[in-house]
Amino acid sequence: MGVTHDLARFAAETRTDALPDGVVHAAKRAAINALAVAVFSARDPALRILLDVFAEEGGAPRATVWGAGLRTSPTNAALANGFAAHLEDYDDTHFPTLVHLSAPALPAAWAAAEAAEASGRDLLGALALGIEVCSRVCLAFHPWHYDEGWHITGTMGVFGAAAAAGRLLGLDARSMARAFGIAGTQAAGVREGFGTMTKPLHAGRAAQAGLTAALLAADGFTAPEAILEGRRGLGAVLSPEVDFSRATAALGERWEIFQDGLKPYACCLVTHPAIDAAIAIRLRPGFDAGSVAAIEAVVNPLVPELTHRPEPRTGLEAKFSVQHCIAAALLQGAAYPAQFEAAVVGDDGVDRLRRATRLTVDASMPEDACVLRVGLRDGTWLEERVEHATGSPRNPISDERLSAKFLALTRPSLGEAAGPLLERLWRLETEPSVLGLVP
Amino acid sequence: MGVTHDLARFAAETRTDALPDGVVHAAKRAAINALAVAVFSARDPALRILLDVFAEEGGAPRATVWGAGLRTSPTNAALANGFAAHLEDYDDTHFPTLVHLSAPALPAAWAAAEAAEASGRDLLGALALGIEVCSRVCLAFHPWHYDEGWHITGTMGVFGAAAAAGRLLGLDARSMARAFGIAGTQAAGVREGFGTMTKPLHAGRAAQAGLTAALLAADGFTAPEAILEGRRGLGAVLSPEVDFSRATAALGERWEIFQDGLKPYACCLVTHPAIDAAIAIRLRPGFDAGSVAAIEAVVNPLVPELTHRPEPRTGLEAKFSVQHCIAAALLQGAAYPAQFEAAVVGDDGVDRLRRATRLTVDASMPEDACVLRVGLRDGTWLEERVEHATGSPRNPISDERLSAKFLALTRPSLGEAAGPLLERLWRLETEPSVLGLVP
Repeated sequence: MGVTHDLARFAAETRTDALPDGVVHAAKRAAINALAVAVFSARDPALRILLDVFAEEGGAPRATVWGAGLRTSPTNAALANGFAAHLEDYDDTHFPTLVHLSAPALPAAWAAAEAAEASGRDLLGALALGIEVCSRVCLAFHPWHYDEGWHITGTMGVFGAAAAAGRLLGLDARSMARAFGIAGTQAAGVREGFGTMTKPLHAGRAAQAGLTAALLAADGFTAPEAILEGRRGLGAVLSPEVDFSRATAALGERWEIFQDGLKPYACCLVTHPAIDAAIAIRLRPGFDAGSVAAIEAVVNPLVPELTHRPEPRTGLEAKFSVQHCIAAALLQGAAYPAQFEAAVVGDDGVDRLRRATRLTVDASMPEDACVLRVGLRDGTWLEERVEHATGSPRNPISDERLSAKFLALTRPSLGEAAGPLLERLWRLETEPSVLGLVP
Repeated sequence: MGVTHDLARFAAETRTDALPDGVVHAAKRAAINALAVAVFSARDPALRILLDVFAEEGGAPRATVWGAGLRTSPTNAALANGFAAHLEDYDDTHFPTLVHLSAPALPAAWAAAEAAEASGRDLLGALALGIEVCSRVCLAFHPWHYDEGWHITGTMGVFGAAAAAGRLLGLDARSMARAFGIAGTQAAGVREGFGTMTKPLHAGRAAQAGLTAALLAADGFTAPEAILEGRRGLGAVLSPEVDFSRATAALGERWEIFQDGLKPYACCLVTHPAIDAAIAIRLRPGFDAGSVAAIEAVVNPLVPELTHRPEPRTGLEAKFSVQHCIAAALLQGAAYPAQFEAAVVGDDGVDRLRRATRLTVDASMPEDACVLRVGLRDGTWLEERVEHATGSPRNPISDERLSAKFLALTRPSLGEAAGPLLERLWRLETEPSVLGLVP
């Protein structure tokens, strides 16, 4: 048997109660993170376009579009939630491969769980295994596949969605392999669309395709059973190179979910070390933002390449402006969505600090590290060195930080209901059914 | 402006009344052919699996699943009809590129036309332009894309579907380019799944993706506007080589729909020349199948490569057995679905002729040609040479043959209603609305 069947058997046959506690907890954190981002994004006009098309389509109200106050068909809900979870680029990232794991997997699992009235525990097990399968497939294809121009979240995301949904549908190993075949032959999404709504659409389509694949496989739909390694399979067709040994090495022993980073800040990942440093400097005794005269950041080369933008005009530009991120963090102690609203982007005090910021590139500086120096009017310099930015695998955000992120993102929609929902999510394994859990 | 915009403008701005009569007639023939195959396939258990999933999904009954006696949501209908139209591998083939043009384009156009209560004339115009756009894109990618392992009907089929549906939704050139972007970034389907239900699923998904893309683009969804030629677009990512000059050469002057072959017979395309020859020999005065002693066919090398199967056991195997095709055609004068039913496959007389058949390969024999020699017990030989098999672009099937195919395929489902429906389809441009036209 080949790699497709090995992964299918792992997804189908691993018992939820055999999963390490740390893995289940990591899956719960991934779920809380993805739900927070999706609920926040449900207010975005981009989602409304999808929902308008759904309204014309109709559909049995069997699955929830998180935070949108409506229910629709399972596959449409998977599409909408996957779209919303990735729309703000604020979802989790598997650091070794750049795949966004939860945006495809969680919506497929959630819709399947709602249809089956499955428990929170079963959902968590399915998500943990879906995330593991997806990251394993991505390890086999990365970096060649992404470098060629594929959006790996859209293409390989179908496997996380199919594995998670297939598990909740009770697929055996053979049916799971067929679900992978149906899902894998729908793998799609090119990087040409970055910067447009098609980027999050890839995640939504992956969620929908994976769920649909699991539903069809459960009903006897035939499909190739070696979609990854077959002669005309994804390894041969979708990537210049592939290394399937990575997909199964220490499978079930080493868990890739621990390489899944949850962003603390609502902006480009490479700005995170500098934000950490700015917040730390702000907390120094006697620090006063009004007395800042100069700012100097020593950073990895990717930082200016992606985020040198000293005069951002919109919130989206500010998310990709390291100068804005540093300034907002020094002034407000955070880089949440509030710090990228128009009032902050246009604020004179923020603008003064952005313009005072100089970048120094150091090729030996790791991507998750930086040195920030802030010069005050009295001539003193405050320096902060960050070795591993918050949210990187070496420095994951704490449960408390994740809770704060959840509340910051969901309170605008959910109001006072956000807190009690968060408490239930932290005890998700005790919920008898996920039905109706998230409004 | 690049090739994506050029094709988008062509699709959006060409007036239906400016289309040459021959093009509109060819589109009508393509529609009649695809409807015939889809209605026939609607009785296949494979479609039932899709419809069972739809039943769980629900959906506003706004579009018809042809021949299945039900209506569902537009995008689900597009998926089901695209799947059914390609399920039997009996649909049209664009000879230069191997793409099956109608299975993605017609279902997307039909569902959009039903939703808009569009006229038969508008549907035909949309289909003609969708077919032209799709075949033009395929010309740019062929043969490299298919040779790499892609199922071109699944990948590039999205453009025919998006163009046809987008036209019925009234997209302007800019929106059409965005629809192409949304559709193109969903391009999917690898050849690993040939021989399974995923092959027709590719056509169905292409129909659904193209329709969805047009619906989203009409509502303002943003997307890359150079999906074909962009730096990370399909030309760069989905094919080792590409030649976009072919996509626009003599656009609107030379029409690729005339290269679209409609199969007369329900079996592998390369068996068609021998079937033509066998039917001709059967019609010779005094021919008696019982007196056949030997059969010899001189054929292109592809014929034995794909269809040397002297002892087929199932209908599907018989469709890929040139020996069966010749025997059935000599005995029954046809190679319709009836000739691939179990009773015929297991018939002793058919078996005797299959075993009497010898193939001689001639590398200089064109793919659409053959020589068939039938030796009788009295020692005489009957020889028939076919230069261009029926259904090839150089020898398209007549409207009468197409009508016979339509009736043979639809009467099992539609009974006496098949004839009147066919008459209305031949006058499709006079129908005020396609709504309810096909049951």
